[in-house]
Amino acid sequence: MTSPELEQLIQLLRKLPGLGPRSARRAALYLIKRREAVMLPLADALVRAAARIRPCSTCGNLDTIDPCAICADPERDPATICVVEEVADLWALERAGGYRGRYHVLGGMLSAIDGIGPEDLAIATLIARARALSDGEVILATNATVEGQTTAHYLSDALTATGVRLSRLAHGVPVGGELDYLDDGTLAAALSARRPI
Amino acid sequence: MTSPELEQLIQLLRKLPGLGPRSARRAALYLIKRREAVMLPLADALVRAAARIRPCSTCGNLDTIDPCAICADPERDPATICVVEEVADLWALERAGGYRGRYHVLGGMLSAIDGIGPEDLAIATLIARARALSDGEVILATNATVEGQTTAHYLSDALTATGVRLSRLAHGVPVGGELDYLDDGTLAAALSARRPI
Repeated sequence: MTSPELEQLIQLLRKLPGLGPRSARRAALYLIKRREAVMLPLADALVRAAARIRPCSTCGNLDTIDPCAICADPERDPATICVVEEVADLWALERAGGYRGRYHVLGGMLSAIDGIGPEDLAIATLIARARALSDGEVILATNATVEGQTTAHYLSDALTATGVRLSRLAHGVPVGGELDYLDDGTLAAALSARRPI
Repeated sequence: MTSPELEQLIQLLRKLPGLGPRSARRAALYLIKRREAVMLPLADALVRAAARIRPCSTCGNLDTIDPCAICADPERDPATICVVEEVADLWALERAGGYRGRYHVLGGMLSAIDGIGPEDLAIATLIARARALSDGEVILATNATVEGQTTAHYLSDALTATGVRLSRLAHGVPVGGELDYLDDGTLAAALSARRPI
């Protein structure tokens, strides 16, 4: 019933994660109402980002320069590499602040169900980077999911030969979290990793 | 931390209804990964829709032609006008099927709180259209919210002088709805509007 131009816009918006059919239609109407303020700037931002944003050839972070701003930053410790699943996880760690090392984006997680093996992830480049470190540390910051933990196990096996120090993120009670609402696994992990005051 | 190009894309995506900060970031990463398949086609669809989609000068529907495809369709009864709040409501009625009249999009609802008065909505053009009908019907299909019902009251007062027949959508049990989960207002309305079998 809608015109093909509008229908195609809605179909493309629907592909975005987080937008279902109804919200894609609402988003299209929102855009049409804000042609100059949002719709055309968004089109422009898409074209410019598509032309300029590329994965960093060292760490896999997205940036307009290669190596990326983090890999190129002389203030950041080149001997500490934090391994994450996706660029979104890198952003989350950067937002949290405090980390002054570098990153390595795997581009996914090992998953037998989805047929994702080590050769599908940026693991060979990680091993090469780890091997080049002298007295370095690799922090495995994979997600605390089954796939994330499987990948961390695989990586710790693969990286042991490089002689690098290995660590992983601590499990525990989230800051602001109430014990009564925590799952048993997290609570047990927090208890066994308790620290003297 | 992210590049300005990526940051701007995320800021614009955040403006879309249904996308919060996190989902806007995820959407941006999704798009970068699907540059050729989604990102550039979306930019193209935005530019083309922005250039070609306009509100119908008769009914307010969005289309590339004016009058819109519904107003221009000789098969659709010009003597029946269904009044809706937004184009999304028109689409919902079209998806439901069965309606063969025309529409009138108000562009909002009367709201004292938001300072939206009759002059902010397409009410003058509705009265003019209703006046031009001979033996016509205006269906008030405003939302069943306080603002929607206020607007329907206002419109029924304003349209009485035009001599047009007025009707509104039926209230009742949604198809597939369970009585136990219905609010009392709907159940009372369904009971008082009961129909002989």
